[in-house]
Amino acid sequence: MARDIILALDAMGGDHGPETVLQGAELARSRVPTTKFLLFGDEARIKPALAKWPKLAEQSEIRHTDKEILGTDKPSQALRRGRDSSMGLAIAAVKAGEADVAVSAGNTGALMAMAKFTLRTKPGIDRPALVSMMPTARGESVMLDLGANTESTSENLVQFAVMGAAFARTVLGLERPRVGLLNIGVEELKGTEQLKEAGQLLRQADVPMEFAGYTEGDRITQGEMDVVVTDGFTGNVALKTAEGTAKLVAELMKRAFKSSIWSKIGYLFARHGLRSLQDHLDPNNHNGAVFLGLNGLVVKSHGGANATGVSTAIGMAIDLASDDILDHIAEDLKDFEGQVGLAEAVGAQ
Amino acid sequence: MARDIILALDAMGGDHGPETVLQGAELARSRVPTTKFLLFGDEARIKPALAKWPKLAEQSEIRHTDKEILGTDKPSQALRRGRDSSMGLAIAAVKAGEADVAVSAGNTGALMAMAKFTLRTKPGIDRPALVSMMPTARGESVMLDLGANTESTSENLVQFAVMGAAFARTVLGLERPRVGLLNIGVEELKGTEQLKEAGQLLRQADVPMEFAGYTEGDRITQGEMDVVVTDGFTGNVALKTAEGTAKLVAELMKRAFKSSIWSKIGYLFARHGLRSLQDHLDPNNHNGAVFLGLNGLVVKSHGGANATGVSTAIGMAIDLASDDILDHIAEDLKDFEGQVGLAEAVGAQ
Repeated sequence: MARDIILALDAMGGDHGPETVLQGAELARSRVPTTKFLLFGDEARIKPALAKWPKLAEQSEIRHTDKEILGTDKPSQALRRGRDSSMGLAIAAVKAGEADVAVSAGNTGALMAMAKFTLRTKPGIDRPALVSMMPTARGESVMLDLGANTESTSENLVQFAVMGAAFARTVLGLERPRVGLLNIGVEELKGTEQLKEAGQLLRQADVPMEFAGYTEGDRITQGEMDVVVTDGFTGNVALKTAEGTAKLVAELMKRAFKSSIWSKIGYLFARHGLRSLQDHLDPNNHNGAVFLGLNGLVVKSHGGANATGVSTAIGMAIDLASDDILDHIAEDLKDFEGQVGLAEAVGAQ
Repeated sequence: MARDIILALDAMGGDHGPETVLQGAELARSRVPTTKFLLFGDEARIKPALAKWPKLAEQSEIRHTDKEILGTDKPSQALRRGRDSSMGLAIAAVKAGEADVAVSAGNTGALMAMAKFTLRTKPGIDRPALVSMMPTARGESVMLDLGANTESTSENLVQFAVMGAAFARTVLGLERPRVGLLNIGVEELKGTEQLKEAGQLLRQADVPMEFAGYTEGDRITQGEMDVVVTDGFTGNVALKTAEGTAKLVAELMKRAFKSSIWSKIGYLFARHGLRSLQDHLDPNNHNGAVFLGLNGLVVKSHGGANATGVSTAIGMAIDLASDDILDHIAEDLKDFEGQVGLAEAVGAQ
């Protein structure tokens, strides 16, 4: 963690404007005070907001552009016209080696498309994956792919497992994370051909992870696995379904506490205790999805994140860059490929 | 709803034994008093339990068997050895026309395999689907397939949509249910080829439903759609993820209310209001998954369901049988196929 990180920040992304992004940057900077920032966006809006945070201003350099990617822009439009936008320039700074990692709260589809086009996938990796943290009964788990791809082969899934394990080692600080493949049952015979093949390959794996077989949707939130591996379609649906369900329960709870004078009084008494529940489920405390598998790190912050949320995503970006996660992934994959090659040569059925 | 329903009940299925199953049957009977029951299972256990419910006993006939399917039995074992089990005989009674619908709280895999083998799919339907209700912010939505199949073609998805719409008309009492395909975005270009093809076919559809395009995981619980259509793999993961998330939130809420003397007092005040939240999310109030698409109706009750849960599933079974849902599905599918045939003849691009 000794290396000083230079972070390329898309100051224009997100629903709440540069003020919230910069406030989040200052929060993150106060935790890792050696971090330097390249701020991409409209100088006329960034400068006055930055004036509030003199220390951040000192460690920042504004790179002006008046172009920005809109929430409504399609990935193809972003690719054609977005290179000199705040998002495009932040990614380009990583490509050029000027920054160690880029963070944007802008349009996810556009960010994925531009990151993939500019940075390309790492040797040995066929597809990037979108990785994030999920709150569980035991803390947090890592889950991927959350939607970088629509379909995945068994090889993709194996690469996701290796990337996810490296991610869990860095972000959760685990030596041998437990890794599970998301399936519709835990028996070996369940699931698609891709899953069965991926399971077979991972059972032979000797990289720093414990492959624990299949897991199921209701076990994600139990925290049974440190890393849940799935294809981007299923992962995206599962993530959004979990978000929707948590929101539904919160909404019903709000209605319940408003339903009578007694429950309103009850809320006043229980308020403090309920706070920890809200904190644990607050998406701002789990914010930050990472595109792993590219020649460079790109972190997506949720568009609706508040300053705390932005600082969570920036903090994750700093951790991953400091820990040289991309190098770890490359080593693990090389090890793993060597073993699979060997197994094939020996003659796996 | 004039027809008297004869219901084949697997009295041995479920975690709580015949007593709970029969108590649930009595609850359902008290709501639709004309229902007759064929009770399959161990007479020595059923008889004493039935003695508690004289009216149910009067309207029931016990069909003794000392064989039962265990929770650990594989579908293949059930197929080989389970025909004269309480579950196998209940399904056979539907096949023989002795009963209008079968209900079991036993092993899901075994029930699906035996139902499919014994009843076969209806003409025009390639694959059966597992259908159930999901609690939403607006009430309940229908969702399918929840795991009868591992993979689905576009034709399967279209058939699921037609079946799900018929189900929503019966169970939710809607004339033109809003039907959505579960996807990872709502734009027409999103998703797998199967989804895009299914979307195209459904856009041309003129059956009693409103095809509303794509929907996403976080919109399921908002109740945006009356019917959410997806493949069995994604549906199973989404359902279990929603269950797991609701359980996590409930667990965290319990911890929050126990965290201090103040929150314990708060709970006492709010208890009554929180009851409605619990009721809305209690799986017993949404119990009952139906295998649709076979030549006969089979309803799965959750193994852990209490008597209320069993009565919910039996009530759904009675509604579906009374409404001749299988005939409605057959008619809708015929209509739909006619239109697609026409569209193809006219030359859809």
